[in-house]
Amino acid sequence: MARSPARTTIRLADGRELIYFDGRSGIDRSSADLRHIPPAAVHSELRFDPIFDEWVIVAGHRQSRTHLPPGDECPLCPSQPGRPTEIPAADYEVVVFENRFPSLTHPGRSEVICFAADHDAAFADLSLQRVRLILDALVDRTGSLSTIDGVEQVFPFENRGEAIGVTLHHPHGQIYAYPFVTPRTLRMIDVARAHREATGRDLFEDVLSAEKQAATRIVADGEHWTAFVPKAARWPIELHLYPHRAVPDLAALDGDELDELAMLQLDLHGRLARLFPDPMPYIAAWHQAPVRADRDLLRLHLRLFSTQRGPDKLKFLAGSESAMGVFINDLVPEETARRLRDA
Amino acid sequence: MARSPARTTIRLADGRELIYFDGRSGIDRSSADLRHIPPAAVHSELRFDPIFDEWVIVAGHRQSRTHLPPGDECPLCPSQPGRPTEIPAADYEVVVFENRFPSLTHPGRSEVICFAADHDAAFADLSLQRVRLILDALVDRTGSLSTIDGVEQVFPFENRGEAIGVTLHHPHGQIYAYPFVTPRTLRMIDVARAHREATGRDLFEDVLSAEKQAATRIVADGEHWTAFVPKAARWPIELHLYPHRAVPDLAALDGDELDELAMLQLDLHGRLARLFPDPMPYIAAWHQAPVRADRDLLRLHLRLFSTQRGPDKLKFLAGSESAMGVFINDLVPEETARRLRDA
Repeated sequence: MARSPARTTIRLADGRELIYFDGRSGIDRSSADLRHIPPAAVHSELRFDPIFDEWVIVAGHRQSRTHLPPGDECPLCPSQPGRPTEIPAADYEVVVFENRFPSLTHPGRSEVICFAADHDAAFADLSLQRVRLILDALVDRTGSLSTIDGVEQVFPFENRGEAIGVTLHHPHGQIYAYPFVTPRTLRMIDVARAHREATGRDLFEDVLSAEKQAATRIVADGEHWTAFVPKAARWPIELHLYPHRAVPDLAALDGDELDELAMLQLDLHGRLARLFPDPMPYIAAWHQAPVRADRDLLRLHLRLFSTQRGPDKLKFLAGSESAMGVFINDLVPEETARRLRDA
Repeated sequence: MARSPARTTIRLADGRELIYFDGRSGIDRSSADLRHIPPAAVHSELRFDPIFDEWVIVAGHRQSRTHLPPGDECPLCPSQPGRPTEIPAADYEVVVFENRFPSLTHPGRSEVICFAADHDAAFADLSLQRVRLILDALVDRTGSLSTIDGVEQVFPFENRGEAIGVTLHHPHGQIYAYPFVTPRTLRMIDVARAHREATGRDLFEDVLSAEKQAATRIVADGEHWTAFVPKAARWPIELHLYPHRAVPDLAALDGDELDELAMLQLDLHGRLARLFPDPMPYIAAWHQAPVRADRDLLRLHLRLFSTQRGPDKLKFLAGSESAMGVFINDLVPEETARRLRDA
C-alpha cells in the first residue's frame, strides 16, 4: 500500500506524553488538554522473589484505578465539549499515551494504545488500513522505548473481555517497557540457547518447520508468516503467529512483512470472533527479544489465546496451573485448529 | 491428641479405588457401589512444549465433566437410598477416591479428597479433629502415590470457589500424582541448588529467617510452623506456611508437627474467611519435593492464595502474568499481612 503515516506528540495536563498516529499528514492535532489534573503520585515497586529468582511488581496505587466506567464516562473516547477525556482531540485514528495508573514506573513505562475512536469497535472490525497503522505505532513504540536507559524488554499486548479482567471496554491495547527481562522470555532464551548448542540450529525455525510438516495445526499462512495452534497448546484457544524470517522484534520487520501481518492479524481475529456466538475474551501478546541481549535467540511472535473452552465455559487457572505451572487443556489442539480453519 | 485413625479400601463399580479415613476403627465401611457404570474410557495425553521445555496435559475427555450440578445431584455427598453417589456409604468423615474425570492417567493419577459429608461445609468450619484426619489422609496418599512406578511428584491441593472455576461445591480437594517433576518445582530446585552452591546454605531456611527478622509480614506461628505473606507476593492474598524443620513432604512430618499444622491451617482459613463479607475463592497448594530426586533442596510448604483484591474485585491474570510471567500485585504485602493478623 502507498502510505505516509504521520506522528504528532503532545503533553497531557499532568505532563504525560501522548502521540497521535494518523494515516496521513496535515491533520490538526493541536487540541490542548484543558483538565486540571495533578501529576499522578504513583510509584510501582519491584520486589525480588528469592524462591523463584523472579521480579514481582507491587503497584498499590492501581487498586483505585478506573473500573468498568459507564460508556459515557469512558476515558479513552475522544474529548467532547464539556467532557474532556485522556485524548484531547475530538476524533482520532490511533493514539498512544502514558498510562495514568501505570503498572511500571521509572525506569520502566506503561503505555495505552487506543485502536479506534469508536467505543464499541472490536479489533476484528477494524479496517486493514487501521490495523496497519496500529502496527506502525507498535513499531514506533518498540523502537522508542528500547532507547530508554534501563528498559530491557518491550511488550505490546491486548487484553480483551471482562472475563479476563479488562477494566475498560474501549478497544485498546497496552505496551509495557519492563526494566528487566521477563521470566518467560528468559526461559525461552535458555531453552533456545541449549537447543543451539546441542544442534547448531534455531529453535523457533525448527518448531515452525515441524508445524508446517505436520500441517494438521496450521490455521492460516502467507509468504512471510504462518499461524498455527501449537502442538502443546496450554489454553483452550491458542494461536501462534510466526514470521518466516528470524527477526527479534516488530521494529525489525520490513514493509512487506508488516503489510501481510496486518492482513493475517485481521484474519485470525475474525476467526476467533466467529468461533462462539458471543465475543470471546482473549489476550494477544507480542513476544519480543530483550532490548540489549540475546537478540539472535528469541524470534518475534504473536500469541493469541483465550480462556474460553465452550460457548458458556471458561477455563480457569487453578491449582495445577497456578501453583505447579502444569497446564491442563480440555480441548485437543488439532480439533481447535480445524474449527479455526473452518470458522 | 490420642488418636487411632482407621483406613478402609474398597473398589467402586468401575474399578476405581476408594479409601475411607475414619477417626476410629470399627466403623462399617462395607457398603457396595451398586451403580452400573462402565470403566471410564479416559486417556490424558502428555505433550511436550519445545519452546519452554515443559509438559502440557491434553485431557479432551474432561470437556464433558460434571459442571456445577444442583445440590441434590452432588456426586460427592454420601449415597442415599435411590440416589447413589461416588461414595457408597450413607455417611463419612474423610474419603479419597480416583477421579472419574482424571487430568492424569497412567502412570500419573488424579484423586479426589472429600473433607466432610456436609455439602455446605467450608474448610474453615471443620473441627480440629477433622483437619487432623485430612492431614492423615494426605500423609497416607503422599506415601502411597510416591511408590507408584513413574510417579515423580505428589501435589495435594484445594481449589475453592466458582470464581476460580470450581465445578463442584462440595468441600473437597484433589491429589495429583504427576509422571514428571512440575516446571515450578524444577525452578525452585534450580534456584535452591544455585543458592546452596553459592552460600552453602538452605534457601528456604534463609527465606524463613529473613521473614522472621522482618516480622512485618508474619501472620501466625507456633513451635513448628510460621505463616507469612511473602515479601514479593504475586497474588492479592497470599500466605505461605513453612515448617521450621527441613522436611521434603507431608509424609516426613512427625506427630507434633502434624498436630500444630492442623491448628494453624484452621487458624489461617478462618482469617481468610473473615477478611471479606463473602467467602473468598482460594487455592491451597502443597509444594512437596520430587519423589526421587533433590529431596534435600525443596522444603515442604503450603501456599494459600486468592485472586480476591477487594470485597467485589477479583484479580485476573492478563497479558503480563499469562504471557510474560510478571505478576502485578495491587495490594501491598505488609498491609495484607496486617489485615490478616487483625482478622
